Amino acid sequence: MTQQNRQFRLAARPVGEPKPSDWTLVREPAAAPGPGEFLVRVSHISLDPAMRGWMNAGRSYIAPVEIGAVMRALAGGEVVASNLRGFAVGDRVVGSFGVQEYAVSDGKGVHKVDTSALPMPTWLGSLGMTGMTAYFGLLDVGKPKPGDIVVVSGAAGAVGAAVGQIAKIKGCTVIGIAGGAAKTRMLVDELGFDAAIDYKSEDVRKALQKLCPKGLDVYFDNVGGPILDAALANLARGARIVICGAISQYNSTEGIKGPSNYLALLVARASMTGTVVFDYADRFPEATAEMAQWMREGRLKSKETVVEGFETFPEALLKLFRGDNVGKLVLAM
Amino acid sequence: MTQQNRQFRLAARPVGEPKPSDWTLVREPAAAPGPGEFLVRVSHISLDPAMRGWMNAGRSYIAPVEIGAVMRALAGGEVVASNLRGFAVGDRVVGSFGVQEYAVSDGKGVHKVDTSALPMPTWLGSLGMTGMTAYFGLLDVGKPKPGDIVVVSGAAGAVGAAVGQIAKIKGCTVIGIAGGAAKTRMLVDELGFDAAIDYKSEDVRKALQKLCPKGLDVYFDNVGGPILDAALANLARGARIVICGAISQYNSTEGIKGPSNYLALLVARASMTGTVVFDYADRFPEATAEMAQWMREGRLKSKETVVEGFETFPEALLKLFRGDNVGKLVLAM
Repeated sequence: MTQQNRQFRLAARPVGEPKPSDWTLVREPAAAPGPGEFLVRVSHISLDPAMRGWMNAGRSYIAPVEIGAVMRALAGGEVVASNLRGFAVGDRVVGSFGVQEYAVSDGKGVHKVDTSALPMPTWLGSLGMTGMTAYFGLLDVGKPKPGDIVVVSGAAGAVGAAVGQIAKIKGCTVIGIAGGAAKTRMLVDELGFDAAIDYKSEDVRKALQKLCPKGLDVYFDNVGGPILDAALANLARGARIVICGAISQYNSTEGIKGPSNYLALLVARASMTGTVVFDYADRFPEATAEMAQWMREGRLKSKETVVEGFETFPEALLKLFRGDNVGKLVLAM
Repeated sequence: MTQQNRQFRLAARPVGEPKPSDWTLVREPAAAPGPGEFLVRVSHISLDPAMRGWMNAGRSYIAPVEIGAVMRALAGGEVVASNLRGFAVGDRVVGSFGVQEYAVSDGKGVHKVDTSALPMPTWLGSLGMTGMTAYFGLLDVGKPKPGDIVVVSGAAGAVGAAVGQIAKIKGCTVIGIAGGAAKTRMLVDELGFDAAIDYKSEDVRKALQKLCPKGLDVYFDNVGGPILDAALANLARGARIVICGAISQYNSTEGIKGPSNYLALLVARASMTGTVVFDYADRFPEATAEMAQWMREGRLKSKETVVEGFETFPEALLKLFRGDNVGKLVLAM
């Protein structure tokens, strides 16, 4: 039980894009689980845009990661020692284990997953927090009706890809916004989106105007910045904007750019609402079951980008902000 | 019936604050009402921030005023000739009569008012579109609950003063934001607000933090700009922001400044929703009756600033943007 445990700890609050010097790679012996605890050997770490926000000081929907603390992360792994009834050696589990190789847990917020049916990256992606974010943000906040036009940004990312597919399942017309021809092609050809806009080569505002001349009904925003403004310029009456994230803004050193077209909310009698997935925790089982059923039926595809090697974490995380990943970005040990 | 009719017509689309040269003062004989029409001698013209938006080209919630057309305005007056059953000479009426001394109307959107009970400025203010904007924006979009903290900007303006008083009637704690000590004193001493912030001498963000350390529940925004950002920085969980207007931005020549704190919507799981009063037209009678009852009971006070002289219209309108008015700004002929 004296395995070496490598951890990435937060060394400094990043200014702009996180630098290697913002991290400390610490090696220490893995802790032994106390009474009512178990030890997990982490196999996969979920890399999420939200992690950038957790690195900042100040009030948010969750406390910031303290300087010197192990970086917070959702992760999956195997129970290798247990003093907690209900968690046995060999169980595969998902929880907030942090960016480290071994984690001690009291079981709070941890759930067991069946990796014989679906691989761990899927449990961290479409059937994990990512999928829950898409499911509740779209359905509970966006409230799409059959026939609605649903537009999603960051559409080739983990949340966006799920949002678009769920909207299709619910009978909507779906337009994805993503960067590059490979991604837009993937959205239409593989994931069944009705159309996709390449923000790197197209004027998003004009493209939306052409694709939905009467305006969009739901806009699920993962990116903020000029794409949010382009969506605001194309709202149908009573449109709902779901604010899930703003990846274009997280590394800004000049402050967040607010949506200058926000008065379009008035013109369209539209709403813009923030959503945080943790609020729906008591409904995760129901949503996970429905998402899993859609996956079995082939109606929901899980896209994942798996990067190998624990020590690549600082560099791997940056893929999110560079648009290098398709679907869920996962670090495999 | 060949009275002279003076009219202010839109001569040019303003850049920034409307200039005298953006208007043409036209004199022409008052038209005679045709079959099914009546003629109104206008006595009072409602001056509203929204008029600035109507002067711009482009899509909005209402068509822009065309160059060369009589400026659109709500107004009140007396029927002086009528070929329409239901409207008799001597009736006092309110409608979209425009910035002119005489208007011909077919009665659409016109309603009769009892100026023996309440003066015409009140029918254009608290019991007119202004009051309806406050009533429906606050109650239907802001959805205040008793005990909620309601913050309103432009609080000494026509809509803001009504919003704050209605929120008090509904059992909320009300904080007004206005410019200058005279206005903030009036809000607390005359209108019964719980507190008021002078944005000209105070840091609104810090003042809000002090007055409502747990955050505000409803923010009714008439101004946009830095005050909207200050409110966003002080949201309670699940707060509702009502976007009614953005008077700080209407004359901007550098484009609208979006709220850079909009991601606070996410942190607070809050919403920001646009409202346009015309959507509630079928419920105006019910709201007017309730507002009139509150006025009779002394619970709702109507504040009005009346400017005399038709020809002063171009200058009088600017009072709105300079914060020179308290309550409803009305031009009397």
